[in-house]
Amino acid sequence: MNIRLPLNPQSTTAYSNNMSFSGSTTEFDLGITCDMHVHVRDGAMCDLITPTIKDGGVSVAYIMPNLQPPITTIERVVAYKAKLEKLAPETTFLMSFYLHESLTPELVAEAADLGAIQGIKCYPAGVTTNSNQGVDPNDFSKFYPIFKVMEKKNLVLNLHGEKPPVADGDITVLNAEAEFLPALKKLHQDLPNLKIVLEHCTTADACEMIQEINSDNVVASITAHHLSLIVDDWCGNPINFCKPVAKLPKDKRKLVEVALSGDKHFFFGSDSAPHPIENKGKCCGCAAGVFTSKYCIPYVAQVFQDNQGDLINFKKFVSENALTFYKPANIKSKKHCVLYKNEVQITNEISQGDIKVVPFKFGDKLDWDTKWV
Amino acid sequence: MNIRLPLNPQSTTAYSNNMSFSGSTTEFDLGITCDMHVHVRDGAMCDLITPTIKDGGVSVAYIMPNLQPPITTIERVVAYKAKLEKLAPETTFLMSFYLHESLTPELVAEAADLGAIQGIKCYPAGVTTNSNQGVDPNDFSKFYPIFKVMEKKNLVLNLHGEKPPVADGDITVLNAEAEFLPALKKLHQDLPNLKIVLEHCTTADACEMIQEINSDNVVASITAHHLSLIVDDWCGNPINFCKPVAKLPKDKRKLVEVALSGDKHFFFGSDSAPHPIENKGKCCGCAAGVFTSKYCIPYVAQVFQDNQGDLINFKKFVSENALTFYKPANIKSKKHCVLYKNEVQITNEISQGDIKVVPFKFGDKLDWDTKWV
Repeated sequence: MNIRLPLNPQSTTAYSNNMSFSGSTTEFDLGITCDMHVHVRDGAMCDLITPTIKDGGVSVAYIMPNLQPPITTIERVVAYKAKLEKLAPETTFLMSFYLHESLTPELVAEAADLGAIQGIKCYPAGVTTNSNQGVDPNDFSKFYPIFKVMEKKNLVLNLHGEKPPVADGDITVLNAEAEFLPALKKLHQDLPNLKIVLEHCTTADACEMIQEINSDNVVASITAHHLSLIVDDWCGNPINFCKPVAKLPKDKRKLVEVALSGDKHFFFGSDSAPHPIENKGKCCGCAAGVFTSKYCIPYVAQVFQDNQGDLINFKKFVSENALTFYKPANIKSKKHCVLYKNEVQITNEISQGDIKVVPFKFGDKLDWDTKWV
Repeated sequence: MNIRLPLNPQSTTAYSNNMSFSGSTTEFDLGITCDMHVHVRDGAMCDLITPTIKDGGVSVAYIMPNLQPPITTIERVVAYKAKLEKLAPETTFLMSFYLHESLTPELVAEAADLGAIQGIKCYPAGVTTNSNQGVDPNDFSKFYPIFKVMEKKNLVLNLHGEKPPVADGDITVLNAEAEFLPALKKLHQDLPNLKIVLEHCTTADACEMIQEINSDNVVASITAHHLSLIVDDWCGNPINFCKPVAKLPKDKRKLVEVALSGDKHFFFGSDSAPHPIENKGKCCGCAAGVFTSKYCIPYVAQVFQDNQGDLINFKKFVSENALTFYKPANIKSKKHCVLYKNEVQITNEISQGDIKVVPFKFGDKLDWDTKWV
């Protein structure tokens, strides 16, 4: 059985129920695939990483603004986007600002009108890579004038949903996300028309909060690695260490459940975050981040296969749910990503000059590959 | 105020209430200090590490048997002890067997009669360094004939109290100790006269279980590093990664509380576990273990100072409670360890030839030092 699916990304309902493979060779047209949370960095790392987005089967990439210094001006975000488009002309880059006290409602409105940004990323201070200029999630109210402009301009607020620890307090890497959830709920109550993504959610608590809020305006992204990892996997293995950290088996099960369910409130955002390997394997201060861009869509397909045995709802998770929420105006390439059965050996590293980056699950094999048609 | 305390280790009650320092220069006679859980390894590492026990202010060290292969014969334990005594003639080494199917009740009885061992260490299979030949803690019953000999011979059973994970199960590094506790309780119910140490306990649950059992025969050891660390400290910092892993703030608070309380059911066992630094700082498969022997007593004194502001009960924790439980027959050196206020800079590494070991809290300062009188 070799099902060749229709190439129209709008007509998924018609064939999504047929996305089973049952061991046969199969191809699946995934349409315009989306990774709604991508770090491509700057400098030589950016040159190396940006083209891997397409390699991993992703058409539309939502780009994180946590460079050093963070991106907070129209000039810089426009220049960054131009640079990325030069490196990867067929990838559609959706850009974001870094929520920061230097932003004004006027600047945000202007950036939106120009189409320079699709959203603004909010980092709690100190919780992850380059977040030292982040905000205090205990008090978002000073940003409400900006958020009100975002509501009007249909911009998305991308929340890194972790409460920062305080000295001698009870917040740890394990409960920081759960402790943040009341702030998410309050934000939605105060600004019900603000489009919010709880980024890279890692806990059953977070999934349940999104389901409880049950609004078209409040969704969550889920990474490839959090669909595979638990705490034991990063314990002693910095290659799997990221923020938020992978949690308990029950949390992973819930993430897999909502990803597989097709629920429109959840879609793929890899949080692919490359670091030079020498910054990952250290005795102290290992860099937080897992690099997945190179094999994004195959990683997630493997999770669907291993947990459900079929790919029903796969296209919803890696394409439709994100397109429905973000409604990107200009897709640069009309090519579709096609997933097909083909054993892929994950490379031990990708490198250019002195920079070496080790991908997630290096050395393992995946059962799926992608191509563009 | 410079209190010079009596040098008689039997008379602590008389002066322990005066063990406050309030910023003044002070000296404390700790008598015969004990670290009841020490890894000194074999080969060149053993040559480097063994003398650091005395450097760290410890007189009596209970030595772990998890060499490769593990120590399960009288011949090997005697040879190992002789080697250690040559390396550190003033340190008293209490030796142990590794609980293993090759042990027989007869062999254990003979080893006890010879004074070759003071106890037997039980490692659940696969939970930590060199534990691949360990036992299944879901079923201790096959070792009951050995345990019955141990009861008679007054040998101590040293339990690494973690339940091993199973594929797709809910046991993680975070709850493995709590999940083990029913097995501890059952063991004590079945063999109430068996002397048991729950080694390196890391959770409030474990402390509460020891308090609930409330027997002279069931105690727990606590490391220096677990009195300082929580999960966030080893997250991204393999130097602080050990098994069992440090847990939540509430767990650390309970460990500090019971250590400071003087409760006879808790005493110091460092689980000092040296690894070459290249095995700690890796991107995958970092060695589990924190090296503390070099500064053992000062590390713990610092915890007492920082949490309580005085050293009441310090001697109980690092000396008396262990001596009461183990009752070691032959102390090799009658010298006392004296703790005194003196700023100590923790070295960045200790080394010999190609071997480099990085101590816990390297580069930090401690307010206390030790000397021998």
